[in-house]
Amino acid sequence: MKIIIVGASGTMGKHLAGSLEKDHEIIRAGSASGDVRVDITSPGSIENMYQQAGPFDALICTAGPTHVGPWKNMTHKEFRKGIEGKLFGQVNLVLIGQHYINPKGSFTLITGALTHDPVLNFSNASAANGAVEGFVRAAAIELNNGIRINAVSPTVIEASPQYFPFFPGDIPVTMRHLEYGFRKCVFGAGTGQVIKVA
Amino acid sequence: MKIIIVGASGTMGKHLAGSLEKDHEIIRAGSASGDVRVDITSPGSIENMYQQAGPFDALICTAGPTHVGPWKNMTHKEFRKGIEGKLFGQVNLVLIGQHYINPKGSFTLITGALTHDPVLNFSNASAANGAVEGFVRAAAIELNNGIRINAVSPTVIEASPQYFPFFPGDIPVTMRHLEYGFRKCVFGAGTGQVIKVA
Repeated sequence: MKIIIVGASGTMGKHLAGSLEKDHEIIRAGSASGDVRVDITSPGSIENMYQQAGPFDALICTAGPTHVGPWKNMTHKEFRKGIEGKLFGQVNLVLIGQHYINPKGSFTLITGALTHDPVLNFSNASAANGAVEGFVRAAAIELNNGIRINAVSPTVIEASPQYFPFFPGDIPVTMRHLEYGFRKCVFGAGTGQVIKVA
Repeated sequence: MKIIIVGASGTMGKHLAGSLEKDHEIIRAGSASGDVRVDITSPGSIENMYQQAGPFDALICTAGPTHVGPWKNMTHKEFRKGIEGKLFGQVNLVLIGQHYINPKGSFTLITGALTHDPVLNFSNASAANGAVEGFVRAAAIELNNGIRINAVSPTVIEASPQYFPFFPGDIPVTMRHLEYGFRKCVFGAGTGQVIKVA
């Protein structure tokens, strides 16, 4: 299977690429490194990525920039970060990618437990996640040729201890369980699902 | 109670304004008519609306422009309509409005059943709804001074029969039930809730 991983140099993307490359052809895509460069906030850059990568069987996105910070004086400019990044960036990977993906291919996006379980300072991610989850369910009934779409929704992950203080009482997700979530989406048969990993 | 209704000239807004004005001071806000004019896609226009309206006890938003149309060739430009309108417009009503609302006031936003129950041609609304619902839950734990935030989530409404063909088998929501949903948010004590009306 030929799999594009967007965010391949990030914590999640690096782990997934390293594991999946044992059995699959991996195209690493990232904003600053990788086999192909992509800025997911730019539709033109996404189009360019797909043209360079050629037809593929699965796209995994682990990239989802959002704004983290105090609420009281949060501005619309700060809030826009997650809107253009984690939200619209991932939507555009699918809207554009549908024209490049092979029949029976799949898109797997990243959301997170914040959709339903908010914590202070992360309202931008809660909104972005909720949008991506709504989009995944809607796109699943629109895509043709057996193409599937799902999302993986972790809470804080064990490899990012810098976030632990923001998630009191949340048991960090192991990288192994996170990987299982993505494997279920890519190699399973489900569509329109939000796979919660914990 | 002093209540601002954004979208007051629309189907839902008009009904709510007519009912609530019997017992409350209503400020009608709209893009083309009303006591104050507002373009919710413009933070400057929202700021201006709040300055004109003065301190208030409740904001109800029934305005949520989205793109409706076939999926296959949907462009990122079309998809942006719901992102800037129903999604970011409503988020900005709260981010900015928190500095004008009275203590113990409330924000009530509009989402819809499409968040979890998609229909063809409405993926843009599904994404926008999901974002607003995630945002409502997150903002509820951030707002101070007893300020509450909730959303009302109807399926297709009886007063908009032009949409019935898009929602096969969905029982249209009566305007009375819709009004109950908004009354629960404005006059109840809940926060961070998505009130499904059916």
